[in-house]
Amino acid sequence: MLRDGAVSAVVVLLSGGMDSATCLAIAAAEGHDCYALSFHYGQRHDAELDAARAVADTLGVTTHRVMPLDIGAFGGSALTDPGIAVPLQQSEAIPVTYVPARNTVFLSFALGWAEVLDADAIYVGVNAVDYSGYPDCRPEYIDAFQRMADLALKRSVEGRPVAIRVPLIAMTKAQIIARGTELGVDFASTVSCYQADALGRACGQCDACRLRRQGFADVRIADPTRYAPGAEPDGA
Amino acid sequence: MLRDGAVSAVVVLLSGGMDSATCLAIAAAEGHDCYALSFHYGQRHDAELDAARAVADTLGVTTHRVMPLDIGAFGGSALTDPGIAVPLQQSEAIPVTYVPARNTVFLSFALGWAEVLDADAIYVGVNAVDYSGYPDCRPEYIDAFQRMADLALKRSVEGRPVAIRVPLIAMTKAQIIARGTELGVDFASTVSCYQADALGRACGQCDACRLRRQGFADVRIADPTRYAPGAEPDGA
Repeated sequence: MLRDGAVSAVVVLLSGGMDSATCLAIAAAEGHDCYALSFHYGQRHDAELDAARAVADTLGVTTHRVMPLDIGAFGGSALTDPGIAVPLQQSEAIPVTYVPARNTVFLSFALGWAEVLDADAIYVGVNAVDYSGYPDCRPEYIDAFQRMADLALKRSVEGRPVAIRVPLIAMTKAQIIARGTELGVDFASTVSCYQADALGRACGQCDACRLRRQGFADVRIADPTRYAPGAEPDGA
Repeated sequence: MLRDGAVSAVVVLLSGGMDSATCLAIAAAEGHDCYALSFHYGQRHDAELDAARAVADTLGVTTHRVMPLDIGAFGGSALTDPGIAVPLQQSEAIPVTYVPARNTVFLSFALGWAEVLDADAIYVGVNAVDYSGYPDCRPEYIDAFQRMADLALKRSVEGRPVAIRVPLIAMTKAQIIARGTELGVDFASTVSCYQADALGRACGQCDACRLRRQGFADVRIADPTRYAPGAEPDGA
């Protein structure tokens, strides 16, 4: 359990996108010792991990680990499988950018690290509002993961559970941007685009780009996103 | 769902030990196309993986994948951390050979692969009888993992869940040996010892060796275990 007023170690999943950056900023603002965890899992580009490193550095984490994971070798997702195109607009209920069991794998690693660190919580920036097509971003999924974790870990069985914290779960993209901005997140260094170039510059066209741009517009903050040359969105 | 009478693809977690070998033999005997999954996760020795390869080969799996995983880098277990000694006899409720979140991580990868393969089930040889000290080998843990998985996957949400099958969960070591023998498992090629040498030869002294030896004795089958020179157990 998180001890009120005491500094607790917590694990924070950090992807390099704006949601996990804001999630880390929230955990840090609550006074925790933050152990950031990123994965190199066969993403199409490394720009996301460069962004994660920049965010971890700026927000002053205790440790940032990047774990290599071969999950992309399973295929089955437009985010890791070169044979599946990233669509410019979603037409299905569950996007092709869904990576099978991704959040489950990520949270499982975080659980193992949390137990070794004796960390009291895992922070994860899942969000059910803008990306509701992903089954493993829903509150009922997180609740089920928590119940499983409570039975999986030695420390949980001994009465000291690891809490799964999802501070962004019910926030809109605009609310996330507003909160992150308050907490000093440098959104220019975060990467949301599904097909960013090697420098982390966005395509301006994919679903993730459109949601991000709309979020900045909604909250009336200038969009600091770095777009690839010629990829500036209409009206940017 | 498993279709009665039809050949289904299933993922089988395969460690190289006798339990997972028997679990694979059961899945194969049920007529499934078996996709075996092993992990290289910082075990003290590679003999386990050599054993897994031999078992997969003998039992005729469709594919055998060995995924590299850096879970050992977290430390915290006598099985992966050279700084923690393997005890000859357990004295605690939860053994120091417990690897934090190991089964959760393994099952999570299996889930991802199952979804990509369109597999209907995952077979895992967890057993709550002889190793009851591990929290993530208990039926209530498996049930909670199933409920989580039902909410995590695209195919589950679409009405086609991946079943977590634990055919050994309530079997004694002797029953596992008897069933595996019936199904043609070559137990001589499996490795149970926590500190087997580079050739996979057992120490004869650790908890895993003692449980295994007792199992063969109970079922009155000659113990085919390969022991290291000078490590033959008393009375062997």
